[in-house]
Amino acid sequence: MTRIYLDNAATTSLDPQVLEAMMPYLTTHFGNPSSIYSYGRESRLAIENARKSVAKILNAHPAEIFFTSGGTESSNTAIIASVRDLGCKHIITSSIEHHATLHTVEYLYHSGEVALSYVKLLPNGHIDLEDLEKLLAGSQEKCLVTLMHANNEIGNILDIHAVGELCKMYSAIFHSDTVQTVGHFPFDLRNTPVHFITGAGHKFHGPKGVGILYVNENVKIKPYVHGGSQERNMRAGTENLYGIVGFAKALELATANYETESNYIKGLKIYMMEQLKKHIKGISFNGDVLGRSLYTVLNVSFPKTEKSEMILFNLDINNICASGGSACTSGADTGSHVIRAINNNPNQVAVRFSFSKHNTKDEIDIVVEKLKEII
Amino acid sequence: MTRIYLDNAATTSLDPQVLEAMMPYLTTHFGNPSSIYSYGRESRLAIENARKSVAKILNAHPAEIFFTSGGTESSNTAIIASVRDLGCKHIITSSIEHHATLHTVEYLYHSGEVALSYVKLLPNGHIDLEDLEKLLAGSQEKCLVTLMHANNEIGNILDIHAVGELCKMYSAIFHSDTVQTVGHFPFDLRNTPVHFITGAGHKFHGPKGVGILYVNENVKIKPYVHGGSQERNMRAGTENLYGIVGFAKALELATANYETESNYIKGLKIYMMEQLKKHIKGISFNGDVLGRSLYTVLNVSFPKTEKSEMILFNLDINNICASGGSACTSGADTGSHVIRAINNNPNQVAVRFSFSKHNTKDEIDIVVEKLKEII
Ligand SMILES: Cc1ncc(COP(=O)(O)O)c(C=O)c1O
Ligand SMILES: Cc1ncc(COP(=O)(O)O)c(C=O)c1O
Repeated sequence: MTRIYLDNAATTSLDPQVLEAMMPYLTTHFGNPSSIYSYGRESRLAIENARKSVAKILNAHPAEIFFTSGGTESSNTAIIASVRDLGCKHIITSSIEHHATLHTVEYLYHSGEVALSYVKLLPNGHIDLEDLEKLLAGSQEKCLVTLMHANNEIGNILDIHAVGELCKMYSAIFHSDTVQTVGHFPFDLRNTPVHFITGAGHKFHGPKGVGILYVNENVKIKPYVHGGSQERNMRAGTENLYGIVGFAKALELATANYETESNYIKGLKIYMMEQLKKHIKGISFNGDVLGRSLYTVLNVSFPKTEKSEMILFNLDINNICASGGSACTSGADTGSHVIRAINNNPNQVAVRFSFSKHNTKDEIDIVVEKLKEII
Repeated sequence: MTRIYLDNAATTSLDPQVLEAMMPYLTTHFGNPSSIYSYGRESRLAIENARKSVAKILNAHPAEIFFTSGGTESSNTAIIASVRDLGCKHIITSSIEHHATLHTVEYLYHSGEVALSYVKLLPNGHIDLEDLEKLLAGSQEKCLVTLMHANNEIGNILDIHAVGELCKMYSAIFHSDTVQTVGHFPFDLRNTPVHFITGAGHKFHGPKGVGILYVNENVKIKPYVHGGSQERNMRAGTENLYGIVGFAKALELATANYETESNYIKGLKIYMMEQLKKHIKGISFNGDVLGRSLYTVLNVSFPKTEKSEMILFNLDINNICASGGSACTSGADTGSHVIRAINNNPNQVAVRFSFSKHNTKDEIDIVVEKLKEII
C-alpha cells in the first residue's frame, strides 16, 4: 500500500535538487563560515549568496534577511525584540495564530511585560479589521500587532497590506508569521508595510532546522541568541551551512515554478472539495475556502459519528497522512485551537488535507473513496 | 596544493558514516515527528532513539537530554533559565569563556538582572578555585557558576568535579560549556555534580545546526524558544530531524573509537610541539599544554616580527587552515580575548592548531616546514 501524503502544511519532502545543492556542504565544503582563511571564506560566500538570493526573491535588502533555526525561533525573536528593544507594551494578536506566536505572547504577558489583546474574528475566520483598528486606536501604549499571513490550519490569508497600513497609522510594529506563504506566494517586501516576517525551509521542500527572519531596515533590534558575531551580530552560533544553502535553493525552485505549481495544486484542492461534496453527506469546509485562502490547504468538517471520530486513525491505517490540526500539537489530544475559535461545533470532526506538487488527482480519488468507506 | 586542515576546534568534517545515517531522513523519511500518523511516528522514533543513545553515552537519563540548534542556543538557554527560572541573581564566570557564555551573561548584567563576577585565573590559564570559593562564600545571592569544561582556544580542562562540589556546598547552579569535550571525552553525568552541559554536533564530525542541552533532572526550567510542544515542551519548533540523527551517530562513532583516536590525536599534538620547539626559536605554548589540556588543541606563541604578524595570511596562502582564536570572532581583527586574558604579551603572535583523526604526521611536517619559511 503506497503512502498518500496530504499533510504538506506540516512538513514537505526535501526536493532532490535541494539536497543536491546541499551535498557539497555535507561533504567536502565543511569550513566554518567565520574562519578567515579561504576555505572558511568559501562557506561564508555560500551563505552570503544564499542571503542575496532570498532577499532578491522577496524584494528585500540582503541586510534585512537573517538565517535562524526555523520559523519558531524567528517569531520568538521578532516578538520578544519588539517588546524589549522597540518599546511595545501592548500586543494585539488573534486566537488562531500558531503556537510559536501564541505561546510567546503569553510568556510576555505572564511575565508582566505587556498587555495582550485578541482581535475579533469574522465568521469565515478572517481578522475583523474594524476591531483591529478599534484596539489600535484605544491603546495607550505602543503596540505590536502580530497576525499570521496564512493560517496553517484553515488556510485563510490576511490582507497584510491593509493591516500594515493600519499599523502605520497608529505607529505600531507589525510582525506577520509568513511560514505558510514564504515559498508559496510572491513577496514584494519593499512595498509591503511590515517590520518582521518569518519563513521555514521545510514548508516548501527545503530542509528542516533552518528559517529566516526578515527585519525591515528601519527597525533595529538586538539578538535573541547571544554569542559569536555570526549574522552580523544578530544571531549567534555556527551557521547551519547546508541548511542555509538548501533554504535558498528551495525558495529559488519554488519561485521559478510558482505559476504552474500553484495552479496545479489549487486544481487539486478544488477537485477534492468537489469530490467530497459529491460523495459525502453533511460535509462542510472551514475558513474562507474559496476566497482569500491558501491553495495548499483544505480543512474539512465531517459530521460527528462514532466512525468519523476515528477518521484520522483509519486514514493512517490506509497509509493516508492528514492531520487534525497543527502538527506540533497533534500529539496532544485536545483538538485544534483554531477550529475551536472559529467554529466550535461539537457535532463536527475537522481534518486538514494539505497538498504539494507531488500529489495527484488519482491520490485524491483514492482518499475520497477511502473516506466514503470510513464514514 | 592539497589543503591541510588544522582548525578542528572551529568545526570538523562530517563523517561519511554520519551522513549515511542522515540520508534516509534527507530523502524518504521526511515525516513531521509531531504528526500522529505512523509516518510521523517513525520520525519521532528516530529522534527518541537518538536521545536514548546520547543519554546512554553520557550516562544520563533520556529525559535530561534536549536537542537544540547548537551549542550557543544551549548555553543561552541554560544561563538565562538559571536566572529567570531558578532564581540566580549572581553569575560567576571567567574572562576566557566562549562568547556564547560571555555575551549572554553580559546581556543579563546590562539588563540589571544579575550581578557579575569574573573568577581569577592562574598563570597557566586554569581557574583559581580558591578565588571561586571566595566568590561563592561572599555572595549574598544565589549564584550561577558558568565555567567551560575545555577552553576552545588554549585547550585547558576544568576540574568539573571540584567546581561542581564547590557549587553544591554553596547551593549554586553549575553550567559547564562542554562544546569542546562532548564527543571528545567520556562523560558520566550521573556521577558529575553539574546542572547543565552543552554540546554541538559539528565539533566531533557531526552535523552543523544541531546541539544538545543536558538539564539535570533535579532542576526544572522553562523553554527559551516558545511555541509547539516539541522536546517535551522544552524547545519549540519542528525538529532538525536529520541533524538529530546525525548528532547521535557522530557521538556513537566518537565513543566507539575514543581510545585509539584520542591517543592518535594526542600523538600528533605532542609531535607538533616537539617539532616546533626543535625548529623555531623563541616559540612558546599557551595554556597548561602538557597538563590538564585537550588533546585536540595546541596554541602556539611566535615571537612578534613583521613576518609572524602575517602568519595566518601566509598559512592560508599555503592552503593551511589554522586560526588566531575562536572562529566566530576571527572575522573581527581584535585578537583573542582568551590570549589577552592569560598572556597579554604584545611581543607575541598566537596561533591555534587543532587536530582530528584525519590529520597525519606528514601534514605536521609540512606545516612546520612552512612555518620555518614564513617566520
Ligand atoms: C567552547 C565553545 N562553546 C560554544 C561554542 C558554540 O557552538 P556553536 O557555534 O555550535 O553554537 C563553541 C564553538 O563555536 C565552542 O568552541
Ligand atoms: C504558521 C506557522 N508558523 C510557525 C510554524 C513553526 O515553524 P517551525 O516548526 O519550522 O519552527 C509553523 C509550522 O510548524 C507554521 O505552520
